[in-house]
Amino acid sequence: MSLNTFGHLFRVTTWGESHGPALGATVDGCPPGIAVDAAMLQHWLDRRRPGQNRFTTQRREPDAVEILSGVFEGQSTGTPIQLMIRNTDQRSKDYGEIARTFRPGHADITYWQKYGIRDYRGGGRSSARETAARVAAGGVARAALAALAPDLRISGYMVQIGPHAIDRARFDADEIERNPFWAPDRLAAAEWEGHIDALRKAGNSVGAVVEVVASGVPAGLGAPVYGKLDTDLAAAMMSINAVKGVEIGDGMAVAALSGVENADEITMGPDGPVYASNHAGGILGGISTGQDVVVRFAVKPTSSILTPRRTITRTGEETEIVTKGRHDPCVGIRAVPVGEAMMACVLLDHLLLHRGQIGESRGRIG
Amino acid sequence: MSLNTFGHLFRVTTWGESHGPALGATVDGCPPGIAVDAAMLQHWLDRRRPGQNRFTTQRREPDAVEILSGVFEGQSTGTPIQLMIRNTDQRSKDYGEIARTFRPGHADITYWQKYGIRDYRGGGRSSARETAARVAAGGVARAALAALAPDLRISGYMVQIGPHAIDRARFDADEIERNPFWAPDRLAAAEWEGHIDALRKAGNSVGAVVEVVASGVPAGLGAPVYGKLDTDLAAAMMSINAVKGVEIGDGMAVAALSGVENADEITMGPDGPVYASNHAGGILGGISTGQDVVVRFAVKPTSSILTPRRTITRTGEETEIVTKGRHDPCVGIRAVPVGEAMMACVLLDHLLLHRGQIGESRGRIG
Amino acid sequence: MSLNTFGHLFRVTTWGESHGPALGATVDGCPPGIAVDAAMLQHWLDRRRPGQNRFTTQRREPDAVEILSGVFEGQSTGTPIQLMIRNTDQRSKDYGEIARTFRPGHADITYWQKYGIRDYRGGGRSSARETAARVAAGGVARAALAALAPDLRISGYMVQIGPHAIDRARFDADEIERNPFWAPDRLAAAEWEGHIDALRKAGNSVGAVVEVVASGVPAGLGAPVYGKLDTDLAAAMMSINAVKGVEIGDGMAVAALSGVENADEITMGPDGPVYASNHAGGILGGISTGQDVVVRFAVKPTSSILTPRRTITRTGEETEIVTKGRHDPCVGIRAVPVGEAMMACVLLDHLLLHRGQIGESRGRIG
Amino acid sequence: MSLNTFGHLFRVTTWGESHGPALGATVDGCPPGIAVDAAMLQHWLDRRRPGQNRFTTQRREPDAVEILSGVFEGQSTGTPIQLMIRNTDQRSKDYGEIARTFRPGHADITYWQKYGIRDYRGGGRSSARETAARVAAGGVARAALAALAPDLRISGYMVQIGPHAIDRARFDADEIERNPFWAPDRLAAAEWEGHIDALRKAGNSVGAVVEVVASGVPAGLGAPVYGKLDTDLAAAMMSINAVKGVEIGDGMAVAALSGVENADEITMGPDGPVYASNHAGGILGGISTGQDVVVRFAVKPTSSILTPRRTITRTGEETEIVTKGRHDPCVGIRAVPVGEAMMACVLLDHLLLHRGQIGESRGRIG
Repeated sequence: MSLNTFGHLFRVTTWGESHGPALGATVDGCPPGIAVDAAMLQHWLDRRRPGQNRFTTQRREPDAVEILSGVFEGQSTGTPIQLMIRNTDQRSKDYGEIARTFRPGHADITYWQKYGIRDYRGGGRSSARETAARVAAGGVARAALAALAPDLRISGYMVQIGPHAIDRARFDADEIERNPFWAPDRLAAAEWEGHIDALRKAGNSVGAVVEVVASGVPAGLGAPVYGKLDTDLAAAMMSINAVKGVEIGDGMAVAALSGVENADEITMGPDGPVYASNHAGGILGGISTGQDVVVRFAVKPTSSILTPRRTITRTGEETEIVTKGRHDPCVGIRAVPVGEAMMACVLLDHLLLHRGQIGESRGRIG
Repeated sequence: MSLNTFGHLFRVTTWGESHGPALGATVDGCPPGIAVDAAMLQHWLDRRRPGQNRFTTQRREPDAVEILSGVFEGQSTGTPIQLMIRNTDQRSKDYGEIARTFRPGHADITYWQKYGIRDYRGGGRSSARETAARVAAGGVARAALAALAPDLRISGYMVQIGPHAIDRARFDADEIERNPFWAPDRLAAAEWEGHIDALRKAGNSVGAVVEVVASGVPAGLGAPVYGKLDTDLAAAMMSINAVKGVEIGDGMAVAALSGVENADEITMGPDGPVYASNHAGGILGGISTGQDVVVRFAVKPTSSILTPRRTITRTGEETEIVTKGRHDPCVGIRAVPVGEAMMACVLLDHLLLHRGQIGESRGRIG
Repeated sequence: MSLNTFGHLFRVTTWGESHGPALGATVDGCPPGIAVDAAMLQHWLDRRRPGQNRFTTQRREPDAVEILSGVFEGQSTGTPIQLMIRNTDQRSKDYGEIARTFRPGHADITYWQKYGIRDYRGGGRSSARETAARVAAGGVARAALAALAPDLRISGYMVQIGPHAIDRARFDADEIERNPFWAPDRLAAAEWEGHIDALRKAGNSVGAVVEVVASGVPAGLGAPVYGKLDTDLAAAMMSINAVKGVEIGDGMAVAALSGVENADEITMGPDGPVYASNHAGGILGGISTGQDVVVRFAVKPTSSILTPRRTITRTGEETEIVTKGRHDPCVGIRAVPVGEAMMACVLLDHLLLHRGQIGESRGRIG
Repeated sequence: MSLNTFGHLFRVTTWGESHGPALGATVDGCPPGIAVDAAMLQHWLDRRRPGQNRFTTQRREPDAVEILSGVFEGQSTGTPIQLMIRNTDQRSKDYGEIARTFRPGHADITYWQKYGIRDYRGGGRSSARETAARVAAGGVARAALAALAPDLRISGYMVQIGPHAIDRARFDADEIERNPFWAPDRLAAAEWEGHIDALRKAGNSVGAVVEVVASGVPAGLGAPVYGKLDTDLAAAMMSINAVKGVEIGDGMAVAALSGVENADEITMGPDGPVYASNHAGGILGGISTGQDVVVRFAVKPTSSILTPRRTITRTGEETEIVTKGRHDPCVGIRAVPVGEAMMACVLLDHLLLHRGQIGESRGRIG
């Protein structure tokens, strides 16, 4: 992970700004012979695409992905896959004021302080548009996982918006695709709809918590002590715009547990170890157990809001700012497919790393 | 960050097992001309050293660090610094049963599944002893930071043990060094003492939340979009044994905030921007703002407990395990100096990265 | 350096195939505030462009570079710079036979053996067209060097074609741009013209040796013991298509020298050390001395020739192959700007690395 | 490859100075379950050990290697293997003068210019003693190769000392271990003996060319376009002290070949492709063909000589230097086992990389 590159063997470099000509991902290290085409990647991009309902930004971007290299006759060749998405709906006029005034809670000020130059149009490199490139790269990772770990499934969904969490007792996976919030709980979705509508009308925004679960993950992925699976998942999720917290399994709540409660007891099933619980989120010592890998991350509320906030300009004058333009009232919603994409990239990377160092054989139980 | 190496320019590779001859850290990329000696590193190691009170493992390790390379006449030379700590108090006989039986909640089973071989003595590579190497390397990072960023201060302390959090209104930095828990709240420390004693007597253990704050961090450290400062901090903290959650600033709680609440409003002070609050934990868009950098992480309860738990053996037989030996009832306590060390390593690394790409100049405000 | 990425802090990832839609370079780590535009990069690409005379392939490619990201209002922003060159003159029909028959001396067979799939059109990823992306990236490196090390100059030229070397006594830098071979020796150029014409008419091709010299390189660039300046230069040049040997300074000829001859004696000049000779090619212990950095590399003859050669097909049948199509009779000619580009990338990378670890200060002499 | 670390998946970090307490190698990424012990590594170290005859330095170092981590009950565990060699025969008094005077042709001056501090005792980090750590790490790589590629053999030998090359017609592999020069040609060895003796008596030294050949290398190792097998071999060999040129196959001589001559024609044998020649040195397009991998490198003459040479001091005074002490008259001799070790490390690394990205399957011929 080095500036704009993520991963060890499956390496994704994203590039591009919100209002430049294009953005995309350079994907290096994909195994050869994987069926990849633009339509397949488009499927995942369409899930993340803005403007699909009133709860996301009204910017209209087709987010059409073009494969420029690394795929020949419908298959990956093992060489770098370049994925490009043209920006088309750039209304740069929306962004006049923020050229010189910093939005509180936004990267405007830190980019300026670091670089002494910034592409202020639409947040430039710090825009959530960058995550489209991740979703495209994640599509390649999913295609490779489908070939290498066919039982592996990745599912992202929303578990909290503002102060309102889902009720785990009502968890229904079939609900996820039926509402604009990826909520696995129909009643929570209804509650969130009202909550967001009220905030949006008030010129305000709201935070969220996303959960991503991978099932069918082979045991043994991850490596001590800095290449741990959870280390890379934490980095992957924290690198998404606006994320401020990451949890594996029980996460921050482990602090309140005793060792007796926290121990996921083990019995022997017909296919190997069976765990009585999953406080660990499928990872022990940085290595996957074979249980579901469970990650959660918190997304802060959009900082581009219609309520005036006190701030300063580039020349140090104090002022107030109201951010017009087309912004997500809850940027966490579009983070769901992004979290899934990052999960796919990390798992594929660790699958390849494991195969590289260990090969196919490993410790048997029983 | 690649298996056992952490960092971009300031690169730390830790090595060694709990009951092998020694463990240590290979530190590459330290600037030359930094005053470094063993006594200075020993100071930090002594803070982490086990056996100092009844709340940590009773294993007696002097943790004496030896500098084998990279330092000449009391100064770093710019070449790799090898830090070695001999293991001395290895009672391998304590670890007979766990050679074939997996402790629930422990890396025993995943190391076996991954590698098909494991050094079962005392947890081997997955032992918390590995963190001694981190603390030693962190001592080198602190020495370099003292020269390069003299106003920078790092302070770690405990904010929660079990269900009992500190009262922020009672926060007193002077208390931290006065109690065995690094608690900044005297009443919380008293409460924790009772809580841990009760659990320990019951053959149980407890989780914790550690907070690490760095003040005096220059604005501009970090880089989009995978080399973000918070990405690397999240990875650094998640890579510590038993950590299951990491938060920057308000962390998971940002989900419940509105954008109006979350925006850290900015005014202009004599020395630059002044922020009305620090929900962001000193990082916006992955780049430091100049405010305090605030990180928290949750440490799960020790999985080596005296209460019997159901588990299986290497050959797949179901059994119960009781882990005898000398284990921390709250491994989170010793994680405080480790979190500080990781903070030091990450900040130095990003300071060097920043200097490499940007040099000294950057965007001025005002 | 990891598969398709080169560099530590200034990182270049090239992507693309000879006959795919496009190829290019993802350039990460460029300092901000560097004046960069497409015209500047085009200048260097035009030097390498095929079809300019009868000594290079007759493929007509405008090699027009498009900057897709990382540059705002004519300056680098510090974020990834994506450089794209569309392929336009793809006559895929030329490449029918090589879809199933391997050219001796070409990567056809090894790509097949490794990946089990290959884009056979025009050599795919192994085509010399990939070097266009390097030249574009090298243009960015040169722009940054112009700002950071204004006295630094890079000059590449040809010193041998076939068995005919230049006469160093006739070395004339002004000649380099006056002949199609980048020869610094007018008589050698005339000789080469006849040699290549004869080989081309005979359906044959020829090898070459390119020399690249950088003057004005600050002392102190490079680092022990694997990040040496010469290590990275050797890797950079060896990574260019068809290169089989790399020399620093006297190169292979040092074997025949005695220690007395090889020692570059030092005296003290007004601005620092003055060397009586430069057998070392400007690098001692992997670190630049401040003298000219001198690198040479040998480029093998093009393997795509009109003379029949014995080979096999993908299905193992023995056959002969004659490679039609538009191929360079001496691919070494176009390697001259590529060698310059690699020199620029390596020097900038080490300048940034040095600044990162050391800053501005270093050991003074006198 | 990042400062003092070499390799992608099999990563070797060497550390230590000539006259510090110890030196060694941190080896990360070794597959688990490989039989490794100190005696096995000692075998290779003993081949490189100084003081065994009058043609190498008379420093007496046992070079006894200690394994500090990563090996359990005689097998690698998959965690970092720390190899330490204590320095024992440090006569620091030998090195008084060079504390302030720079040896021409030596890294003394560049280390000073870069770092502003240097361990001048015996060359410090730039000493050839560092290569002991490489040989130890190479022993681990050989052990892993023995398990993963049992047909692979690595053989290094000397092909030139001073102006005298071996006669390839007299090549006899059995001779290599019978003379102190690793010469595969008995008559050349006799000639070199006289040549070196004369130079040594004259207070002079001599250069050399080493060749390393690996047979039994599986086809398909290496990756475009910066992770090429020859790129990494060139870097590996150029990183060895005093090396100034690296050649693959015909090396610099390819320049004089025509395409007809250079094409290694292919026929079909019972086990796959059969090549009529090996100008390519077993590598096409950066990927192994299955033929012998052939690398050569030139080692310059030792710069520590008894003949006075003009130089300057740290304070800029002009002077002459005569280097007393125990120095190799031909440091190239001890580079033979080092070249073998680097070959082993690179091949294992690429074997693991290949297995990681590709797995076992690949393109079949026939």
